[in-house]
Amino acid sequence: MRYYRIPDETIRRLPIYVRGLLFLKGQGRRSISSRDLADLTGVQPWAIRKDFSYFGDFGTPGIGYEIDKLAKQITRILKLDGGHKAALVGVGNLGSAMLAYSGFKIYGLDIAAAFDCDPKKIGRKIRDTQIEDVSSLSSLRKRKIDLGIIAVPRDAAQTTADALVKAGVKGMLNFSPCYITVPRKVKVVTIDIAMDLARLPYYMPAR
Amino acid sequence: MRYYRIPDETIRRLPIYVRGLLFLKGQGRRSISSRDLADLTGVQPWAIRKDFSYFGDFGTPGIGYEIDKLAKQITRILKLDGGHKAALVGVGNLGSAMLAYSGFKIYGLDIAAAFDCDPKKIGRKIRDTQIEDVSSLSSLRKRKIDLGIIAVPRDAAQTTADALVKAGVKGMLNFSPCYITVPRKVKVVTIDIAMDLARLPYYMPAR
Repeated sequence: MRYYRIPDETIRRLPIYVRGLLFLKGQGRRSISSRDLADLTGVQPWAIRKDFSYFGDFGTPGIGYEIDKLAKQITRILKLDGGHKAALVGVGNLGSAMLAYSGFKIYGLDIAAAFDCDPKKIGRKIRDTQIEDVSSLSSLRKRKIDLGIIAVPRDAAQTTADALVKAGVKGMLNFSPCYITVPRKVKVVTIDIAMDLARLPYYMPAR
Repeated sequence: MRYYRIPDETIRRLPIYVRGLLFLKGQGRRSISSRDLADLTGVQPWAIRKDFSYFGDFGTPGIGYEIDKLAKQITRILKLDGGHKAALVGVGNLGSAMLAYSGFKIYGLDIAAAFDCDPKKIGRKIRDTQIEDVSSLSSLRKRKIDLGIIAVPRDAAQTTADALVKAGVKGMLNFSPCYITVPRKVKVVTIDIAMDLARLPYYMPAR
């Protein structure tokens, strides 16, 4: 089921809540107020209440939210409950960092394949993942990999995106510092670490 | 000047506009409609108009926004016009990728120092930046470095944050998959690539 008219900002925040809720669950907590969830995640309490209001009523007055139930509900809304496999393209420093990162698991995500065009890298293994030749990207459809991560140099970003689309990938993260074009049915999120750094000074006291 | 009561979401989007505007400027464009800016950046047109409304009237009816003027105004709002220096702590794969990334410059940001605790890394150079001993973080205040980037393993994240705060850093990006605690006057943005990947399936057609 797809819930319509939910703002992108709400969808962007839902994984933040899942992460916080699973952290609390790991500490043995069973329920939480929106105030405490706000303190933990850094999201403003009014935004949390607004986000949850799109999906009916999650909380119980006086008790707050049941952690386990809420985490499962949000996971289902995000369509993460069935699990998803991703392909990484570009195994440079950034790609290697992603292959080594264990944080995908809590969302049911698995970087199931890694590709590069450098013959020196192809065949090498990074944490159980053997690097494949980028020319074999077409195998993704058969392997039910529907997410892509683009971590190639700028000049190769658009051709990589095209190849991922052709291989049946429906959503991609783009780390290349450029704009890429994809068909409307494919969702692209562009990540630029510089942008995240650029919003800090606003909050800082004058020098 | 600090503009009050601007939602975090608006501040988060302002760098997206700067990036888009400077891209268009590089292509020789002088003005743009909010519709075209939306297409380029992927931000919904109503969100762009709402964001800009916080700062008075940026546009001219029939012409749209003047690209150069708008980019400068947003840069000033974000307090990026004076430039800022950042210190990177943790030169693993992710840290190395950041040192090599040229995208900070357009925001007036400069990763001016890099630190690690590994004696094999200390003294080495990555793109003009010599890696320093993490025990010398206290030099940041003198060097007018007021931003920090935490790219250390989870166990070292809180002590790194503490050291950065002590050295006068007022804003930090945290890439460690954990929650860190800082004084209220310090702004922390936590980045988790897994979260960004986790919001893609919502937009994808059912399998």
